[in-house]
Amino acid sequence: MTQGSASSPDLVTYEVDFEADPSSLIYTFGGVEAKVSLNTPSVLVTSSQDCFAGAIHSEHDLVSHVCDPRYLNPQTGPFFINGANPGDTLCVHFVSIEPHFTHGFSTTVPFFGALTSTGFTATLQQALPEMTWRYGIDFDERSVRYEAKDSNFKVDLPLDPMHGTVGVAPPLGEVRSSLTPGDWGGNMDTPEMRSGVTCYLGVNVEGALFSFGDGHARQGEGETCGVAVETAMDTTLILDVIDGYPTPWPRLESDEFIMTTGSARPLEDAFRIAHTQMVHWIAELTGLSTMDAYQLVSQVALTPIANVVDTNYTVVAKVPKSALKGAVVMGGAHQRLRTMATHVR
Amino acid sequence: MTQGSASSPDLVTYEVDFEADPSSLIYTFGGVEAKVSLNTPSVLVTSSQDCFAGAIHSEHDLVSHVCDPRYLNPQTGPFFINGANPGDTLCVHFVSIEPHFTHGFSTTVPFFGALTSTGFTATLQQALPEMTWRYGIDFDERSVRYEAKDSNFKVDLPLDPMHGTVGVAPPLGEVRSSLTPGDWGGNMDTPEMRSGVTCYLGVNVEGALFSFGDGHARQGEGETCGVAVETAMDTTLILDVIDGYPTPWPRLESDEFIMTTGSARPLEDAFRIAHTQMVHWIAELTGLSTMDAYQLVSQVALTPIANVVDTNYTVVAKVPKSALKGAVVMGGAHQRLRTMATHVR
Amino acid sequence: MTQGSASSPDLVTYEVDFEADPSSLIYTFGGVEAKVSLNTPSVLVTSSQDCFAGAIHSEHDLVSHVCDPRYLNPQTGPFFINGANPGDTLCVHFVSIEPHFTHGFSTTVPFFGALTSTGFTATLQQALPEMTWRYGIDFDERSVRYEAKDSNFKVDLPLDPMHGTVGVAPPLGEVRSSLTPGDWGGNMDTPEMRSGVTCYLGVNVEGALFSFGDGHARQGEGETCGVAVETAMDTTLILDVIDGYPTPWPRLESDEFIMTTGSARPLEDAFRIAHTQMVHWIAELTGLSTMDAYQLVSQVALTPIANVVDTNYTVVAKVPKSALKGAVVMGGAHQRLRTMATHVR
Amino acid sequence: MTQGSASSPDLVTYEVDFEADPSSLIYTFGGVEAKVSLNTPSVLVTSSQDCFAGAIHSEHDLVSHVCDPRYLNPQTGPFFINGANPGDTLCVHFVSIEPHFTHGFSTTVPFFGALTSTGFTATLQQALPEMTWRYGIDFDERSVRYEAKDSNFKVDLPLDPMHGTVGVAPPLGEVRSSLTPGDWGGNMDTPEMRSGVTCYLGVNVEGALFSFGDGHARQGEGETCGVAVETAMDTTLILDVIDGYPTPWPRLESDEFIMTTGSARPLEDAFRIAHTQMVHWIAELTGLSTMDAYQLVSQVALTPIANVVDTNYTVVAKVPKSALKGAVVMGGAHQRLRTMATHVR
Repeated sequence: MTQGSASSPDLVTYEVDFEADPSSLIYTFGGVEAKVSLNTPSVLVTSSQDCFAGAIHSEHDLVSHVCDPRYLNPQTGPFFINGANPGDTLCVHFVSIEPHFTHGFSTTVPFFGALTSTGFTATLQQALPEMTWRYGIDFDERSVRYEAKDSNFKVDLPLDPMHGTVGVAPPLGEVRSSLTPGDWGGNMDTPEMRSGVTCYLGVNVEGALFSFGDGHARQGEGETCGVAVETAMDTTLILDVIDGYPTPWPRLESDEFIMTTGSARPLEDAFRIAHTQMVHWIAELTGLSTMDAYQLVSQVALTPIANVVDTNYTVVAKVPKSALKGAVVMGGAHQRLRTMATHVR
Repeated sequence: MTQGSASSPDLVTYEVDFEADPSSLIYTFGGVEAKVSLNTPSVLVTSSQDCFAGAIHSEHDLVSHVCDPRYLNPQTGPFFINGANPGDTLCVHFVSIEPHFTHGFSTTVPFFGALTSTGFTATLQQALPEMTWRYGIDFDERSVRYEAKDSNFKVDLPLDPMHGTVGVAPPLGEVRSSLTPGDWGGNMDTPEMRSGVTCYLGVNVEGALFSFGDGHARQGEGETCGVAVETAMDTTLILDVIDGYPTPWPRLESDEFIMTTGSARPLEDAFRIAHTQMVHWIAELTGLSTMDAYQLVSQVALTPIANVVDTNYTVVAKVPKSALKGAVVMGGAHQRLRTMATHVR
Repeated sequence: MTQGSASSPDLVTYEVDFEADPSSLIYTFGGVEAKVSLNTPSVLVTSSQDCFAGAIHSEHDLVSHVCDPRYLNPQTGPFFINGANPGDTLCVHFVSIEPHFTHGFSTTVPFFGALTSTGFTATLQQALPEMTWRYGIDFDERSVRYEAKDSNFKVDLPLDPMHGTVGVAPPLGEVRSSLTPGDWGGNMDTPEMRSGVTCYLGVNVEGALFSFGDGHARQGEGETCGVAVETAMDTTLILDVIDGYPTPWPRLESDEFIMTTGSARPLEDAFRIAHTQMVHWIAELTGLSTMDAYQLVSQVALTPIANVVDTNYTVVAKVPKSALKGAVVMGGAHQRLRTMATHVR
Repeated sequence: MTQGSASSPDLVTYEVDFEADPSSLIYTFGGVEAKVSLNTPSVLVTSSQDCFAGAIHSEHDLVSHVCDPRYLNPQTGPFFINGANPGDTLCVHFVSIEPHFTHGFSTTVPFFGALTSTGFTATLQQALPEMTWRYGIDFDERSVRYEAKDSNFKVDLPLDPMHGTVGVAPPLGEVRSSLTPGDWGGNMDTPEMRSGVTCYLGVNVEGALFSFGDGHARQGEGETCGVAVETAMDTTLILDVIDGYPTPWPRLESDEFIMTTGSARPLEDAFRIAHTQMVHWIAELTGLSTMDAYQLVSQVALTPIANVVDTNYTVVAKVPKSALKGAVVMGGAHQRLRTMATHVR
């Protein structure tokens, strides 16, 4: 079912230049020439720049002063996946995601975020103040330190590294900004995209043109102010392809859960997409009728919101595998890549 | 700060007649005479009818055949809370919530639910099939059994009893159907409303006029098909009042989390309400500035969706107390009622 | 088909006390005893207070200073319509609507309006400035004069008087604030509710309990800042009943158009309600199939937005009678009441 | 202020091959090489294919059978406008828009339209029936003939030709499907885009890369079923550039009205965009303060909905020039192009 499933994976290293000029990086899904071609399965050892393209160096740097709006959220890639064709599914298994530096930054950005008017939810009000918070990262304690700007309050929060942006070239010849999520993946900003998880993406163009970035040392669900604890990341992932199986919207799988995503506005449409996808997937996995699957999802789904800040909002539907009674998901891809990963680390 | 906090609570028993004619039960918040007056604190030992007013007896009973649309989601109450006045907060601590029978029912209802058009999201399409599922409840295993209608698939799911509907009389002289959630509480349908949790409700009229119902043996987040595992419940709760402290939107507190709710359409407005409430609450609890609290919420909030099916949708924002460094919440009401509860069981 | 259609109408005069204390007026649909009983058809000669309950006397009066939030948008009524029963339709024909005074006021109100965050579309931003504009009304020129506050700009706009709020008691035992629109009518704020128009409202309770108010000397579509040119009104209307014909959502009829309304959030749901209502109504009136009616509506409907500011948003769908080839609407009620009106003036 | 304003316009003829293979046409804004370069002002005499790429020949052709989903809504262009640079505004004046054939088609398309669930507003319901309606066009009577499929009902409706899709290359390096509207224009589907109107578009890339298509013999507001009376068109337009004046969202100007557009979801965001744009534009044109302009817009705006069916919904805000007391709009571009047009016809 999967190319090269018996063979041992290729090992590919792709270095990111953290000193690169932002204008030399890539900011779209689609519309960019592939940097590297990979066979499948391949282990890819690489890194990603933070969403500010590295322009924030201290809590005194404000986004509107130091960042160029054309050069936000640079991606690593795109990677041309040999053998990936429209109608296939790309498997992206995250072996490890670790902050590249010992700190991260979060900010507010004028007219961006869930608790402010924006360019779309447009009002006549003034913007909220623009501020930058610096978080120290403690790798021994696996924590990040929040420090208030206007008082002495400090608290350590669990380090939980993830990638906000993961995707392939979109369908219909579109080229989409790395700031937007959709059925090609993109800027979904779900904290579920952490190490140990496999992400499934439908392939729209030959070679898939996979890229990813936007590392977060951690984020709350909804990414309320629009900016997580943003960090450059060192990431190892395994790429594989499931031939002839299309995936309409990005899916995820962990050891315990299968997950579907929907990205749209209003937020209830993101919910509807994620949950219809889950109903149809469960019906396929278990042989349940659509109505029986609808009923089961209604009683077992968890629904962690991903983002309510990007140009589309993202909702994740999450069903425990224990409710599926041993159904084999995606031909066992996650378990296979999980095992492969143990040989990598 | 709280009336009668030193005294031991009154014990009040209020019996629900499970054979009562549906038309004799209550279906609104506001607009109904109080059944009983209570001092605070009081332990209330009572029950609630299921959302079908008991009309579904087997999987062959369909809602549109056996239920009168005027008599859906009956509530227990209202209770007049002596000393509760506009501007105060009512504390509702759930000591125990246990299914009254050894089974529950879920159904689909024509043009109701998240994955169908409805009377508001109106389309010209046909309704989905109307069906009823019976769930057996195993109290020893603390599980409910899902059984597919169209195949032999069966699976046991954890029993997790909760109340979908909890509220007081609304402001502005309104009387609202028990099918609707809003700032008075009502049909929020959050699985967080389980035993061990304290719910805080702003008082809008003298005596608060508290009522509750809509027991669920369990539900998924979002209550996708619109109907959980619906069960009559035997419930023990403690009622208390915080004088002179208003609560604009319902809040919850567990041993680990503080939670805010928002109920509105579109779903992003429910998110916005819950999270602005959380930002302002945390600022008040910790002395953080509004912007610092916004930042903290952005990195720590969990956001379990409650319902995407009722006349307003409900979102819960959830922040671990560990991120608040020992801040005392609501004058310590939850801890006090939690302790009181240990003497009740 | 219609009660008393052959008889000449009763003439009922109901005087409004413009000096009354705001707390003595009515602010809900439902929940209030009828002031007067009317037979049908009746000509009702009466008045309405402005939405500020008369509290604004000059451009120096600000809503948050001079108005009590519990006493906004007072209604005239309710009127008990003899013979109106659930399942019937109440016909409200506006014979004339004329401002009671020679001026009106508009204002901004903190966190209310389409171009500001609100209590539901909640953000952390500051409110817009609160201001009051005074409009002189010139009855000879049929104009209202806009005068800028911050410059010398002045311009005369056409006088186009209408009622923002028209409705009956809601279903399900609910009592709804006069600030909210829904299937019972209420605060729809459509400029189509002008003299010469008939409004059709489904009856939910015995006697219908009709009331109305919220006169506007004129308003833009959407009522963008949330406040029109608000004026007390002298209004003559004819009330009649269509027996045994239910109207699910408020409809309007002018000499040229039939119109349906939908009130909901998000705004696309208001659109969907209005347009499904129109499709089904046209199918009924013309014998077209649902799909043929859907096609016709798609090519002929006009869709003037009513309000994007109230607790539900309202959209009107409008189809020229010329596209319906002489179909008889509501048994000819509008034409009959229109003729009756010529004898009243 | 405008390039070449004194010179007489170039005359450019660009022929469309109505027999071309759909795969050879263009379907995106951005991402395509310019076909022709134009100086400004230029009169462009050209045509456009219908949204089906000419694949529907009779009422027996269904979209899902005869159209390739990759090849819907072909555009004429793109045209490279010499001298148009980011930060400038492109003026597109429609001199004449006339159907190329004596008929047009409308259809339903599975899971597309305002009164059905869709891929975004996803439900588990069946699709509505797929059908095609043929409209005869009578150029003498200036009418189109609606004929029901399921009965004998026929009615003539006014011919009112317009272009649904008009735009330039988007910002941020994006390439967008011709099915989507946004700040670059695109598939706005407003009936206001008729002859005699000037459309203003902000330029995002050198040469603007203007294209247009999607002719409608007429459409209702909202384009409810998603498909207007679709026709190939012969169109004459004048293109000009305003140097150094940016236009954030597409604007229109007729002899009587200035108009702004917003394209977003939910629909209230499209409303908010259009109306904030209008407030700021009027403040700029009249010297009114923002709050005074907000007040004026609230009392004078008309708000014809454009579409509630595309991947973004579009709302138009429309203010009569009579309310602006002679303010000169866009340096008088519309009047100048209108005069130029009289010499063309």
